[in-house]
Amino acid sequence: MKEIRETARERMKGYCRVCPVCDGRACVGEVPGMGGLGTAASFKNNIEALRKVRINMRLLHDVTTPDTATSLLGLDMDMPLLAAPIGGVEFNMGGKITEEQYVDAVLGGCVDKGLIGCGGDGVPPFIHESVNAAVTELGGKGIPFIKPWEGDEMWEKLEKARNSGCSVLGMDVDAAGLVTLRKMGRPVSPKTPDELRQIVSRVHEWGLKFILKGIMTPDEAVLSHEIGVDAIVVSNHGGRVLDHAPGTAEVLPSIADAVQGKLSIIVDGGVRDGVDVFKMVALGADAVMIGRPFSIAALGGLRDGVGAYIDQIKGQLVQAMVLTGCGSVGAIGRNCLYDTGE
Amino acid sequence: MKEIRETARERMKGYCRVCPVCDGRACVGEVPGMGGLGTAASFKNNIEALRKVRINMRLLHDVTTPDTATSLLGLDMDMPLLAAPIGGVEFNMGGKITEEQYVDAVLGGCVDKGLIGCGGDGVPPFIHESVNAAVTELGGKGIPFIKPWEGDEMWEKLEKARNSGCSVLGMDVDAAGLVTLRKMGRPVSPKTPDELRQIVSRVHEWGLKFILKGIMTPDEAVLSHEIGVDAIVVSNHGGRVLDHAPGTAEVLPSIADAVQGKLSIIVDGGVRDGVDVFKMVALGADAVMIGRPFSIAALGGLRDGVGAYIDQIKGQLVQAMVLTGCGSVGAIGRNCLYDTGE
Amino acid sequence: MKEIRETARERMKGYCRVCPVCDGRACVGEVPGMGGLGTAASFKNNIEALRKVRINMRLLHDVTTPDTATSLLGLDMDMPLLAAPIGGVEFNMGGKITEEQYVDAVLGGCVDKGLIGCGGDGVPPFIHESVNAAVTELGGKGIPFIKPWEGDEMWEKLEKARNSGCSVLGMDVDAAGLVTLRKMGRPVSPKTPDELRQIVSRVHEWGLKFILKGIMTPDEAVLSHEIGVDAIVVSNHGGRVLDHAPGTAEVLPSIADAVQGKLSIIVDGGVRDGVDVFKMVALGADAVMIGRPFSIAALGGLRDGVGAYIDQIKGQLVQAMVLTGCGSVGAIGRNCLYDTGE
Amino acid sequence: MKEIRETARERMKGYCRVCPVCDGRACVGEVPGMGGLGTAASFKNNIEALRKVRINMRLLHDVTTPDTATSLLGLDMDMPLLAAPIGGVEFNMGGKITEEQYVDAVLGGCVDKGLIGCGGDGVPPFIHESVNAAVTELGGKGIPFIKPWEGDEMWEKLEKARNSGCSVLGMDVDAAGLVTLRKMGRPVSPKTPDELRQIVSRVHEWGLKFILKGIMTPDEAVLSHEIGVDAIVVSNHGGRVLDHAPGTAEVLPSIADAVQGKLSIIVDGGVRDGVDVFKMVALGADAVMIGRPFSIAALGGLRDGVGAYIDQIKGQLVQAMVLTGCGSVGAIGRNCLYDTGE
Repeated sequence: MKEIRETARERMKGYCRVCPVCDGRACVGEVPGMGGLGTAASFKNNIEALRKVRINMRLLHDVTTPDTATSLLGLDMDMPLLAAPIGGVEFNMGGKITEEQYVDAVLGGCVDKGLIGCGGDGVPPFIHESVNAAVTELGGKGIPFIKPWEGDEMWEKLEKARNSGCSVLGMDVDAAGLVTLRKMGRPVSPKTPDELRQIVSRVHEWGLKFILKGIMTPDEAVLSHEIGVDAIVVSNHGGRVLDHAPGTAEVLPSIADAVQGKLSIIVDGGVRDGVDVFKMVALGADAVMIGRPFSIAALGGLRDGVGAYIDQIKGQLVQAMVLTGCGSVGAIGRNCLYDTGE
Repeated sequence: MKEIRETARERMKGYCRVCPVCDGRACVGEVPGMGGLGTAASFKNNIEALRKVRINMRLLHDVTTPDTATSLLGLDMDMPLLAAPIGGVEFNMGGKITEEQYVDAVLGGCVDKGLIGCGGDGVPPFIHESVNAAVTELGGKGIPFIKPWEGDEMWEKLEKARNSGCSVLGMDVDAAGLVTLRKMGRPVSPKTPDELRQIVSRVHEWGLKFILKGIMTPDEAVLSHEIGVDAIVVSNHGGRVLDHAPGTAEVLPSIADAVQGKLSIIVDGGVRDGVDVFKMVALGADAVMIGRPFSIAALGGLRDGVGAYIDQIKGQLVQAMVLTGCGSVGAIGRNCLYDTGE
Repeated sequence: MKEIRETARERMKGYCRVCPVCDGRACVGEVPGMGGLGTAASFKNNIEALRKVRINMRLLHDVTTPDTATSLLGLDMDMPLLAAPIGGVEFNMGGKITEEQYVDAVLGGCVDKGLIGCGGDGVPPFIHESVNAAVTELGGKGIPFIKPWEGDEMWEKLEKARNSGCSVLGMDVDAAGLVTLRKMGRPVSPKTPDELRQIVSRVHEWGLKFILKGIMTPDEAVLSHEIGVDAIVVSNHGGRVLDHAPGTAEVLPSIADAVQGKLSIIVDGGVRDGVDVFKMVALGADAVMIGRPFSIAALGGLRDGVGAYIDQIKGQLVQAMVLTGCGSVGAIGRNCLYDTGE
Repeated sequence: MKEIRETARERMKGYCRVCPVCDGRACVGEVPGMGGLGTAASFKNNIEALRKVRINMRLLHDVTTPDTATSLLGLDMDMPLLAAPIGGVEFNMGGKITEEQYVDAVLGGCVDKGLIGCGGDGVPPFIHESVNAAVTELGGKGIPFIKPWEGDEMWEKLEKARNSGCSVLGMDVDAAGLVTLRKMGRPVSPKTPDELRQIVSRVHEWGLKFILKGIMTPDEAVLSHEIGVDAIVVSNHGGRVLDHAPGTAEVLPSIADAVQGKLSIIVDGGVRDGVDVFKMVALGADAVMIGRPFSIAALGGLRDGVGAYIDQIKGQLVQAMVLTGCGSVGAIGRNCLYDTGE
C-alpha cells in the first residue's frame, strides 16, 4: 500500500495530497478536486463523528475466524462494502489515467475481491459511458449511479445504465448541490416524491433494484421507504455540496431506528479502514461505501491497487470482529460500541 | 473575490490581515483596528457558536429556485441581510480610502444588489456626515446608526440622521463599551429604559422606525419590546467592547423564544457566508448583519467589491435553501438544524 | 505595561518567559520557577475553568460610573482584589531584585492604589522578615501568610507576623505539598481541625483575623467555618502542589453555595485581568487574589509597575461592570453569567 | 531519571522516541515498536481518559506520612503497582540490551523496591525462558504471563511458568489481536469460558493464582468472576490490538461497580506517574500496571533505572495521598475525585 500511495501522490499532484490521515483539512474548499465545499465542515464532521465512536473489546468467546460475507439487494458480497460512485478523473483527480482505466480499476478491483463497485456520472458523456461499458464487461457486476439531472437527460441515462446489464441502479440526489455541474450549464436538482416514485416504478418494471443516495434525516429515510426505494445511502456527498452538514455517523443511528429492516441502509462518509466499516455496521448500516481512498488506490495502483486496499480493509475488519466476538456481519450491533447503546 | 481580497490585504496592512478564515485569532486585542478586545474571546465565541450549528440536508422536495427576498421594517430586501454599521476607515482600517469612498462602497453596493446597508458613527464629524450624505444620495436607502453619546450630541446627531431622508434609524448601545471613544474624550454610555422611550418616541414622531443594537439577553429583549423599539440587533459589537461575552448564535434562540413576532430580530457576529446567514435565520433571526467582511470587500473593490461579495453570499444562501428544501426565507426554521430543535 | 513586561522578561530569564498569555504551557513542571507541578494540569485547569465562564452583556440601565470599592475582614479596598502571597525572588524569579525590593513593590504598590497585598513565607528567614518589615512600614497595611510548618517554627512565625502591626494573618495550608520546602529539610504538612482551632483561637486572642488558604471542596469550606476561620482562599496553590486538581473557578460555585455569607470567600487561580476578577466575584467570591502577574509587574517595574498593573485591572473591571449593569461589587452575581445560573 | 531517559532515547532509536509526554502521538501505528495500532486511538484514549480525571485536594486532616503498602493475590507490595508483562526487546525496543538483561531489570528492579513485576511471552522461546529463569532466581517473586496460544503450546508454557516457582500466573488474552504473532505463524486467539475454566482449574490445582488480562466490559468482568479467575486486568493492551477501544480509565468505574470485592481488579493504560496510580485506585482498581515507562527505565538504566523510576512514582503517590488526606491505599476512593462520585 505504501508504494501505491506514493504513486497516487505523484499522479494526483494538485488535486489530492494523499495525506497520511485523509481528513479534509489540507484540501479545504477544493471543489473541483477532492476536498470539501466551503470550510469543509461537512467533510470534517464525517471524520470526527466516526472518530468519536469507540468499540467494546471482548475476548471471552469462540470467534476466531469470523465470516465477513453479506448479501445486499440480491448481491452476494465478501464484505459489507461498496466502492462509492465517483467520476471525473480529469477535473477531480488530475487526469493522469483515463476514465476507462479508473472505472476498470475500481469496478474490476471490487469484482476481483468479491465486492461490488459503483460507477459515477458527470457532464462529459465518457464518464457514464465508461461505467456502463465496464459493468457490461464485468457481467453486470457494478452499480451505475445517475445524477439527478433535470429533464430527459435523466431518463436517457437511466435507460443506458439499464442496458449495461446491471441488477441495481442508483441515483445520488445529493449531487443536486454540485457547483461544478451548475457551472457547466447542466442543472441537477432535488427530486419530488412523485418524480422519485416514477423513477422507482420504471426501475422496478425493468426488474432492477434502486438505491437513493443522499439521505441525512429520519424523515427523508421514512419518505424513501414510502416511495419504495430498495436502499438508501446516508451521505452528505463527502461534504462537497452543503457546508456544515452533520457527520453521517452521527445521523445514522436515528435513521436506522426509523427504517432498519424496511429497506437496506448504506452509509458513506469518512470510512477509511476496516474498523470504520465495523463501526458503521454497528451503528446500523447494512453496508458501507468508501469513496476517496478507492480513488487513491485506483490512481496509485489501478486494479491491483484497489485489490490491495480491499485486502487491507478485510484484514482490519476480521481483526475487529475477532476482538469483539462477532462471528458474522449480523452479529455486529450497538452492544459492540462503548456507551452508545441499548 | 480573490483579487478583491488581495487588494484589501495590501490596503489594510497593519489593520487587518484579511485571513483565509476571519476568526479573530490573528488580531487578538487590536482595538482600534479590526480585532476583538482583550483576549478576543467574544469575537471567537461568535465564530465558534456559529461553527457548531449544523444543517439538515434534505433533497426529496420541489425547491429548485428558492426566493431569498424578505421585508424588514417596511424595507424590501433581496436577502435577509444588511451591512453592519462600521465607521472610522482611518483608525480602524488604515485609511487608504476615504470615509466617503467607504460609505459609498458599502451603502451603494448594498443598494445595487437590492439590500440596505447601515452607516456608522464616531468622533470625527465626517464619519456620520459621510453616512448622512450617502443615504440622501441613495434616496433614503440606508440606515444611519448613532452611538449612545451622553448629552446633546446624541439628539443633534439623531436629528441630522433623520434629515438624510432615511426611513429607519438605529443606535448601537453596545458601543457604550468602546475604549477608543472614551480615550478621545467623547463619552458614550448605556441608556436607561426611560431615555430609550424618549428616543423611540421622538423617532416614531418623525415617522421613522428605530433599531436598538446590542441586546444579548432575553430579559433585555423583552425590555426592548416594552420600550417600543421596532427591531433589536443581537450583537456583542463584534467582540470589541466586552471580553468573554457568549457568541450571538448561542443567545439568539432564547431571545427568539422570548420576542419572536413581537419585534424584528436582527443578529450579527461571525457571519461570513450564505450558509451562516441561513443558520442565523434558522436560529430565529429575521435578518442578519455582516460587518468585517463588508469592510474588506469595500477596501478591496469599493462598490463593485461589495457587490461581488453580496453575489457570493446569495449563491451560497440559494444553495443552502435548495439543499434543505426551503422555498422562502419564511420556511427556514429550526427543523433545518441538526439536533437543536423542536 | 508593555515596557514593564519587557523588563520583566529580561529580569526573569530562565524563570518566567512572561508569555503573551500566562497559561502554564511554556513552564510545565518548573517548580522552583513559576510553573505548575508535573504536567501543570492544575495550573492549566485554573486558566481553562475561567476561560469557559461567559458574561451576559446588558446595556439598558443607568450604570455609567460603577463603584468598585469593597470591604473585607474590616479592610477597606478600592477593588475586591489582593496580591497573593508569593515569596522567594531568588529561586523562583531569578533574583535580579532583592526580596525587600519585591515585597515593597507588591505590598507598597497595593497600598498606593487602595488595595492590600499579602506577603509570602519560605525557608530563608529574610522572606518573612522582609514581609513583616514592609507591613510595619506600611502601617499594618499588608497580610503576612505563614506556611504550615511542623512544630514551633509555625508559632514563632505567627508571633513575628503579629508584631508587624497587621490586622489580618493568613496560612497557606496548600503549601503543604511544596516539594521545594521538603527538599530543603523544612517540613510543612496538612493541619488537623484541632491544630487549626488552636491557631484561630490564638490569632483571635490577638485581635486579628485569620485567612486559611487552600480550600478546594465544599466539605473543607464548611469545616473551615466550623473551625472559626474568618476567610478561606479557594486555591490549588497555582497548580504547584498537586497535579490534576480542578480549576478554582470550577469548584468556587459549589463552595459558595455551601458557605457564602458565613465567612469571606477569596479565590485565586488564573486571574489575569479585570474581567477575570468580575467573573470570580460573579461565581461567588468576595475578593480575588492574583499571583504571577503581580510578580511580573514587580520584577518589571517595582512599585510603579504594580501600580500600573492595578490601574489596568481597574479599567477593565469598571468596563465590565458598566457593560453588565453592575453599579457596585455587591451587584455582581450569577445572573451576570451566561448559562450558569439560577 | 533525566540521564536514564537520555540513555533510553539513544538505545531505543527507531523504536521509541522517549517523548517528554508519552501519549502515543509520535509513534502512531508502530507495531512492532512501541506505538498504538492503526490510528493509535486506543493508546490516546487511555491517556485522555486519565487526563480528564481530577482530584479533590484536601488539607484539613492528620495525614502526613501515608502508608502506600497493599496486598494483592497473597503478595505483599510496597505500592499498588506492578510492572506490566512486556517482552520482545529485539523487535519492539531495538535490541540494544538482551532479553535477559531486560527481564532482570524489570523483575529485579521491582523486587528491589518491594514490588512485583510481570514477565512477557512471545515467539522466540528465549522470551518466556528469560522470564521463568528470572522468577526462579528471584525466589518466585515475579508473575509470568502466557499468551493465549492455540493448542498445546499454551499448556506447555503454563507448565514451564509454573515450574519457575511463581505463586501467580497470568494470561493476556488481549494479545489475541497481536498482528505480529499472526505474521510469525503462531496463532493466538480469544478463549471461550470453557477453555478458561480448564486453565483456571489447572492453575488452582497447582496452588497458584490466576490473572486474566484484557477485560474491557462489565459483562466480561462478571464472566471472569464466574469462571473463577482471581484477578482481571482492565486493559486494551496498550492500544496495540484494536484501534478505537475506549480508555481504560473510562471503563474502569463501571467494571468496578460490577465486580469490586469479588476478585482483584488491576488496570493498565496510560499510567505514567504516581498521580495516575492514585487516580486509577480512586476509580476502583486494587492495583495498577505500568508498561512502556518501565521499558524505558529498563533500557535507560537497567535494574537501577527501574528502581529510580519506582522511587519517583512513590514520591508522587505519597504526595497525592498527603494532599487528599488518604492515610492508606484503602482510603483512596471516588470521593477523592472531582465531580465523579456518589
